[in-house]
Amino acid sequence: MAQAIPDVTENANKPNTQQKPKDRDNFIYIGKKPTMSYVLAVMTQIQGGATDLHIKARGKNISRAVDVAEVVRNRFAQDMSRRISIDTETVEDKAKNKLNVSTIDIRLTK
Amino acid sequence: MAQAIPDVTENANKPNTQQKPKDRDNFIYIGKKPTMSYVLAVMTQIQGGATDLHIKARGKNISRAVDVAEVVRNRFAQDMSRRISIDTETVEDKAKNKLNVSTIDIRLTK
Repeated sequence: MAQAIPDVTENANKPNTQQKPKDRDNFIYIGKKPTMSYVLAVMTQIQGGATDLHIKARGKNISRAVDVAEVVRNRFAQDMSRRISIDTETVEDKAKNKLNVSTIDIRLTK
Repeated sequence: MAQAIPDVTENANKPNTQQKPKDRDNFIYIGKKPTMSYVLAVMTQIQGGATDLHIKARGKNISRAVDVAEVVRNRFAQDMSRRISIDTETVEDKAKNKLNVSTIDIRLTK
């Protein structure tokens, strides 16, 4: 009871963490950490030579994904082109109800 | 002190409400109302003959804008094409500090 009130979108996101393709380093999944943590992750990828990477998020984290993409573009990688797509995924909550959750994929390419 | 803790992004959004171009009916600005309110606004525009409209949001409302666009596409307007762009705006808070806030523009065209 002392915990913060859980957020439906947050819970809906959880199954996804298990589906992460661990072998695809050029996917950055945006969660609840501060924006700059993800900016650092993206910059590490770019400085490691990545020329094609995806910033992905679901539900309420979509706003943070946009923040990450904008910080990266404005401060570090003006020369990368972007392609943004949005979609809907269906996930099950703990009570097995089906929920629709919006997703975003911001692709950065050099 | 009894009020909810204000949210920086929320405050940053306020100046924009005064800048709304009232004469541009085909801009839907996403705020804090329920998603379906905005879906209804978009559908009203489309049924009124609009063939080119923009769903716009800033800060944390970006996630809701994506939800609105997805509901519209999935339930009502599969035939419309979309173009999504993201950007950064600088706004001033009450203490005249400059804040960067991310924006999204989801353009629907027939």
